[in-house]
Amino acid sequence: MMIQTPYLLFLGDAPDMLAAKVAIGIRDWRPENAVGQISLPGCGADLGLTEMTLAEGREAGAKTLVIGVANRGGAISPKWKDMLLDALAAGYDLASGLHNLLRNEDDLVEAAKAHGRALHDVRIPSVQYPIANGEKRRGKRCLAVGTDCSVGKMYAAMAMEREMHARGMKATFRPTGQTGILITGGGVPLDAVIADFMAGSIEYLTPDHDADHWDLIEGQGSLFHISYSGVTLALIHGGQPDALILCHEPTRTHMRGLPGYSLPSLEQLRDTALPLARIANPACQVVGIAVNTQHMETGGARDYLAGVSQRMGLPATDPYRFGADMLVDALAAI
Amino acid sequence: MMIQTPYLLFLGDAPDMLAAKVAIGIRDWRPENAVGQISLPGCGADLGLTEMTLAEGREAGAKTLVIGVANRGGAISPKWKDMLLDALAAGYDLASGLHNLLRNEDDLVEAAKAHGRALHDVRIPSVQYPIANGEKRRGKRCLAVGTDCSVGKMYAAMAMEREMHARGMKATFRPTGQTGILITGGGVPLDAVIADFMAGSIEYLTPDHDADHWDLIEGQGSLFHISYSGVTLALIHGGQPDALILCHEPTRTHMRGLPGYSLPSLEQLRDTALPLARIANPACQVVGIAVNTQHMETGGARDYLAGVSQRMGLPATDPYRFGADMLVDALAAI
Repeated sequence: MMIQTPYLLFLGDAPDMLAAKVAIGIRDWRPENAVGQISLPGCGADLGLTEMTLAEGREAGAKTLVIGVANRGGAISPKWKDMLLDALAAGYDLASGLHNLLRNEDDLVEAAKAHGRALHDVRIPSVQYPIANGEKRRGKRCLAVGTDCSVGKMYAAMAMEREMHARGMKATFRPTGQTGILITGGGVPLDAVIADFMAGSIEYLTPDHDADHWDLIEGQGSLFHISYSGVTLALIHGGQPDALILCHEPTRTHMRGLPGYSLPSLEQLRDTALPLARIANPACQVVGIAVNTQHMETGGARDYLAGVSQRMGLPATDPYRFGADMLVDALAAI
Repeated sequence: MMIQTPYLLFLGDAPDMLAAKVAIGIRDWRPENAVGQISLPGCGADLGLTEMTLAEGREAGAKTLVIGVANRGGAISPKWKDMLLDALAAGYDLASGLHNLLRNEDDLVEAAKAHGRALHDVRIPSVQYPIANGEKRRGKRCLAVGTDCSVGKMYAAMAMEREMHARGMKATFRPTGQTGILITGGGVPLDAVIADFMAGSIEYLTPDHDADHWDLIEGQGSLFHISYSGVTLALIHGGQPDALILCHEPTRTHMRGLPGYSLPSLEQLRDTALPLARIANPACQVVGIAVNTQHMETGGARDYLAGVSQRMGLPATDPYRFGADMLVDALAAI
């Protein structure tokens, strides 16, 4: 169930760049997936891609119009409707990560049916996943685990994939959240999977592969985040990773959304995640640390990374800011 | 969303007692919930309750006909249909834990509507659960965690509840699986909850209560069972237990359904579960051990329990076979 690429990125009436997070992710991480952008009057976001009409997008090869804008409350704006209906008539599939589903909009469903197009709601699974069987799979797997939610696990995995491809290594980023699924065109929306099938969905996402191929699995949640820790453990046990990357954001004062909960140290994360990972894969190792330093000055960030690396005896970098070289070196050494 | 009690227990054409597991659980743990049993010709199961007609059941006060028999593949047998339709006409609600849902049977849906009755499919949630907020709740909570699945966690919790009630203590068994839900009339079918809401569903199940009240939360899965470990961790973090009971079945040669995975020791279970539980409740303690000794001779079982108790420095019993006294003593001491 892959979304057809390339895309035309729909920015709608996004008030600013922050609202266009999904489109920015696609532009930054899969530029080959985006032929251009299309906006409505008053749009405050600009990706710097060619602004196209629906017809120009189709001529440039676009197969899917991706809603690259997050609306307040995850709604599908009535202001977008004419454009979305025109897109279906022009031969586009539609893809959305919004809370409100394309498939619940009667006019879109009707138009999609009339024109033989697909509506992709990436927030909900389109597959009946199996229950995990725990059998050892060929190929290698790397998983990013975090001290908290939203500390840069997805960016770490994508930065590593890019660096590995640049070196000619075999690697595939495996999305487990809606943004990653829209960026690449496929994946598992893990937070929407039924409890019994979580680990199985990750086995399904990361099947047997070449012995020298790496799956770079997108992390979710945190073992220390009580709202989502179960999702994280399912990811660890379904993914049976050979390598863990520890992810951290040093300026966080408490767990995201949980004012009463402080963050664990990187040592606590290592000592909690590794024994759990070794239940599924006794050979698993912690190989490196990815720090999200976006709220730190360059000098302070470099000092922090050097200190962490020294303290933990592991390579430590901000893979988005300073490159993923040393994390990829660590994987290559396994 | 509680199922109306008391029940009339429907045994259908169960070939033997094994197929009547749900009905047996109700008879053993909530005898006050069952006014009698009703069978079809050729039924090989007998609970020893009064065999009644539908009319006699209603006269005895029964409000719900519970399907107490597990059919092959979880199907609703066509042979049961006349009886189920008659029950709706006679004023019964229906409750089922089968995989195939009552609500997907058109004739039952139509009859339920015509007679103003409810169809309860306890395998799927009937509530939109919140995302867990991790806030400390009043009252005390005990959770059974296992070295494996199906090692007696539910029976341990129910045996403790019975003993606590006998002592006049405030306690409520909180079911998290279909059998427990049918036995008590309510609970959370955790394995069917959407990933993001697992921990929240357990917060919902075990709300603020009297300071001296114990919720005895039914455990699910195992942190060491890679298929379901995420469910277990959500239960630990959503339940924020004050007390953990370790559960074990000593004759198991490998993890249930996973031939390549050996069971952890009770020490490994303690050392894994307790630090994770303390993320949600720093005061959490491991207070006792419940061993399922059903495959051991009495003498061997008693020797085993004495050895485990000595080794772990904790009370150890088979609460179903030898009573839950010492586990309740341990809770009472907190």
